[in-house]
Amino acid sequence: MITTNTNQQIRQITALKDRSRERARSGLFVAEGSRMVRETPPQLLEKLLFSESFSKKEEAGKVLRELAEKGRPMEPVLVSDTVFAKMSDTVHPQGICAVVRQPVYAPGQLLENAAGTGGVLLVLENIQDPGNLGTMLRTAEAAGACGVLLSKDCVDPFNPKVVRSTMGAMYRVPFSVYDDMNELMPELKKRQIRSLAASLGADSEDYTKADYAGAVAILIGNEGNGLLPATIEGADGRIRIPMEGMTESLNAAVSAALLLYEARRRKNCL
Amino acid sequence: MITTNTNQQIRQITALKDRSRERARSGLFVAEGSRMVRETPPQLLEKLLFSESFSKKEEAGKVLRELAEKGRPMEPVLVSDTVFAKMSDTVHPQGICAVVRQPVYAPGQLLENAAGTGGVLLVLENIQDPGNLGTMLRTAEAAGACGVLLSKDCVDPFNPKVVRSTMGAMYRVPFSVYDDMNELMPELKKRQIRSLAASLGADSEDYTKADYAGAVAILIGNEGNGLLPATIEGADGRIRIPMEGMTESLNAAVSAALLLYEARRRKNCL
Repeated sequence: MITTNTNQQIRQITALKDRSRERARSGLFVAEGSRMVRETPPQLLEKLLFSESFSKKEEAGKVLRELAEKGRPMEPVLVSDTVFAKMSDTVHPQGICAVVRQPVYAPGQLLENAAGTGGVLLVLENIQDPGNLGTMLRTAEAAGACGVLLSKDCVDPFNPKVVRSTMGAMYRVPFSVYDDMNELMPELKKRQIRSLAASLGADSEDYTKADYAGAVAILIGNEGNGLLPATIEGADGRIRIPMEGMTESLNAAVSAALLLYEARRRKNCL
Repeated sequence: MITTNTNQQIRQITALKDRSRERARSGLFVAEGSRMVRETPPQLLEKLLFSESFSKKEEAGKVLRELAEKGRPMEPVLVSDTVFAKMSDTVHPQGICAVVRQPVYAPGQLLENAAGTGGVLLVLENIQDPGNLGTMLRTAEAAGACGVLLSKDCVDPFNPKVVRSTMGAMYRVPFSVYDDMNELMPELKKRQIRSLAASLGADSEDYTKADYAGAVAILIGNEGNGLLPATIEGADGRIRIPMEGMTESLNAAVSAALLLYEARRRKNCL
């Protein structure tokens, strides 16, 4: 059993949690909690860690049996409760976490899927709040979107807070980071995916009246500043969600949800 | 200038930020940041604090001028930068905060408003995440809801994280804490406010097909567990948001947004 924080394996996990550069370098990340570990596709699991207390619980045996049944039997690394608590980023850690290989999707693959099925892509530019990004991935799955594209300056999707708030959707919705929005726009056009930019500008159309037929990309920008002017300019259409009162804007994840569910509804009516 | 954390005024602010009991006892709370302070109705302001650096900025003069113009001239309490940073709950504090009197609305008043205007009430049961509650208040304003009722076991609406994520909506959307859901339901019925419970049960109706005519209360429950069975049972109708994929549920603030905007849209079509 590991009883010290200076242990090499514990240092690796801490580095994977705290540093996006370490996650990018290794292609790994950390999933914490029983639910997230059990939602992880077994072939992506690299290492399993149990705290001493957790290892004695019924749940521990259940997790191990499930993995064996799925053809991926694993031997958990045992960690003392105090070391686990220090390593965890939650106040009341359950005592289970895993090192996971990052699922990889090529942006081109996502574009092909959307174009081929006439589906919906969610395109995110400079989203900074991990909870928002996680919620958007979760909502994208629920609304039946075929993928999520993230600009390079978005918060890292493998950040522990993002991972937690996706509630497992990150394993089921294809997502990918694209390098340059200026290159993405022509790619969308080439594949006849109509881009709709969420924008509060005066020339934006009410989102309930926009045209969602065919393959569509819904573009959402930064929490404070929205999309870059160039992105709004380059999009095929501009849409807005009407607001009462003196609200200046909606939360980015709320906007994404309203637009994704509108696209879903309109496609179902076609 | 205050240069020590043990100063009586600093201790009061720290207590107001950290302890909901202290907020309830005093009827006060703390609003932090230039935007929140400027959105605060001047008559609710009890005390204004500036860090030394902030007091030298143009923004400081602007805030004071605005208050004077609104008929509420104030003398800010000066605090050293280090003391302000320790007192603040943000990583990069702007250096401005205020002690604010809690706006008070009687639950009965909210019910009367909804019944009188045929409007929409949002009723929240046991919401625990401060960011979710703040986002729901913000969305309620944007969707034109006439008020938000919170069960006693919701996170305190005057918690600093809730305050921040409302983006000022807490000063514009009437909200109130009710003591007992079992007493609320008959009050709704008495005023002919139809209650619609968000529930994933098999007998729930698709939210786009439900009836939103007349005064309506939309009921949303706890992030992990949803509404209590008794609350679902007691409601006039049950509605659900369809989900694709393997998602088990949506984020509570996302659900609230979809239902509030659906009610808004359907009322506009009547």
